[in-house]
Amino acid sequence: MSRITYVNGDYLPEAEAKVSIFDRGFLMADGVYEVTTVVGGKLIDFAGHMARLRRSLGELRMDAPTSEDDLLAIHRELVRRNALEEGLIYLQVTRGAADRDFAFPPAGTKPSLVLFTQAGPVLERESVRRGIKVATVPDLRWARRDIKTVQLLAPSLAKMEAKAKGADDAWMVGEDGFVTEGSSNNAYIVAGGKVVTRHLSNAILHGITRASVVRLAAETGMNVEERPFTVAEAKAADEAFITSASAFVTPVVSIDGVALGDGSPGPIAKRMREVYVAESLARAI
Amino acid sequence: MSRITYVNGDYLPEAEAKVSIFDRGFLMADGVYEVTTVVGGKLIDFAGHMARLRRSLGELRMDAPTSEDDLLAIHRELVRRNALEEGLIYLQVTRGAADRDFAFPPAGTKPSLVLFTQAGPVLERESVRRGIKVATVPDLRWARRDIKTVQLLAPSLAKMEAKAKGADDAWMVGEDGFVTEGSSNNAYIVAGGKVVTRHLSNAILHGITRASVVRLAAETGMNVEERPFTVAEAKAADEAFITSASAFVTPVVSIDGVALGDGSPGPIAKRMREVYVAESLARAI
Repeated sequence: MSRITYVNGDYLPEAEAKVSIFDRGFLMADGVYEVTTVVGGKLIDFAGHMARLRRSLGELRMDAPTSEDDLLAIHRELVRRNALEEGLIYLQVTRGAADRDFAFPPAGTKPSLVLFTQAGPVLERESVRRGIKVATVPDLRWARRDIKTVQLLAPSLAKMEAKAKGADDAWMVGEDGFVTEGSSNNAYIVAGGKVVTRHLSNAILHGITRASVVRLAAETGMNVEERPFTVAEAKAADEAFITSASAFVTPVVSIDGVALGDGSPGPIAKRMREVYVAESLARAI
Repeated sequence: MSRITYVNGDYLPEAEAKVSIFDRGFLMADGVYEVTTVVGGKLIDFAGHMARLRRSLGELRMDAPTSEDDLLAIHRELVRRNALEEGLIYLQVTRGAADRDFAFPPAGTKPSLVLFTQAGPVLERESVRRGIKVATVPDLRWARRDIKTVQLLAPSLAKMEAKAKGADDAWMVGEDGFVTEGSSNNAYIVAGGKVVTRHLSNAILHGITRASVVRLAAETGMNVEERPFTVAEAKAADEAFITSASAFVTPVVSIDGVALGDGSPGPIAKRMREVYVAESLARAI
């Protein structure tokens, strides 16, 4: 079945969903995005995604394409038109179409707004049952990873490099030897009963799921340290996991071929996933 | 007059020139580009651009969309259909349209190919007569600037930051304090009779015009040093200039408000432009 997408005001079958070749998203990666998870036809942490979108737009001095009420209505209409029970809604805003120039286009240039759905299992995934293997690769990305831009070539290459090494995903490592994050998720280790994840800065994406998980970990009585950790520290950890809007909490069972613990998903990752899923579903809209 | 563009096999008026929202160029900046200058309806250093395109595609393991003979034919057809005497032809190749995934799409996914023209003066420009002012800004780009990808948000932001400071363009500066290059051009200083420009590495774009200018400078008996230089060294230089396919050689007359020499275009920049233009026009095809 062909999906119905949203492109600049129109609901269109995916084969007709197009943007101008002069769109700055296409020519210059001058765009930002969000991915909201849908379970039971409801949106998970929509307010969190809107808050981050606002921040991304503000950091790039990009106009909002429409109101957040409108964006919510579009999300819901896409759920309805695609009968989406479980999966994702991808949203992208760009600075719009204009003759190509490194300088921003004239004020008043209309931003582009594109959304589409991706149906697929979110609650029950093989990757959660098994846990994933990660391989470490150099972090080649630009210096403002806190802005959720479509400059995703480096993470895409990182993922391919990890796959070539036999892993499921990459953990990217800065020149200083500290892990930044996964190709499209935040990274955590558990050692000595503490959950360790890199602190917020321009070096990593400010994950919506990360914020919830850090809060929930503290609320459930866990000791959380927000600081960088090295690859060596990660390999010696008791367990590890990743978080993202679509992965929720997913266990990591090996790093560069080194099994963590007994090589199966760890109890704290499992517990964090249960707590996160329970709260997210209860709050979904 | 509406331009005629080229999009995946079709010559289309610019208003109809569109790509899928699932194009990886739009969603993930998974694309590379070249800009070839046209003077008198002829292409300048087309072979150089094709060689760099080949390298960019190879570094990203991206398929070529068609043969270089075909690309030449498309360039010439765009010149003809748009009656282009002087200006640019922009070419972009992406990994094609596929459902969004950080992993590359299946082998055999057809790359996208987009070209369009931009008419405008190349030989006679106010910026060449006056010289340009540059402002230094931090270089925020990713670690593989040698690949000519469409991840151009950082240079675009750099250009806007430079404009906000009253300059015409930015010179980007690495964390080590050395100038990398301009927002869309290579950077040179002239001091003590020597032309200094940063050596080739992953830190800068391997400019087609840079290669010609470095060779021509040597051939005309100038002393060329390929090495990094600091902002302080640049401000103390006798003169400075930039090179790019569209700017050719354009003098720089001030850096962060500090005038170079007497604040007007320097003799070596002028001479290098003359030599470069003469050779390029003689070899244009």
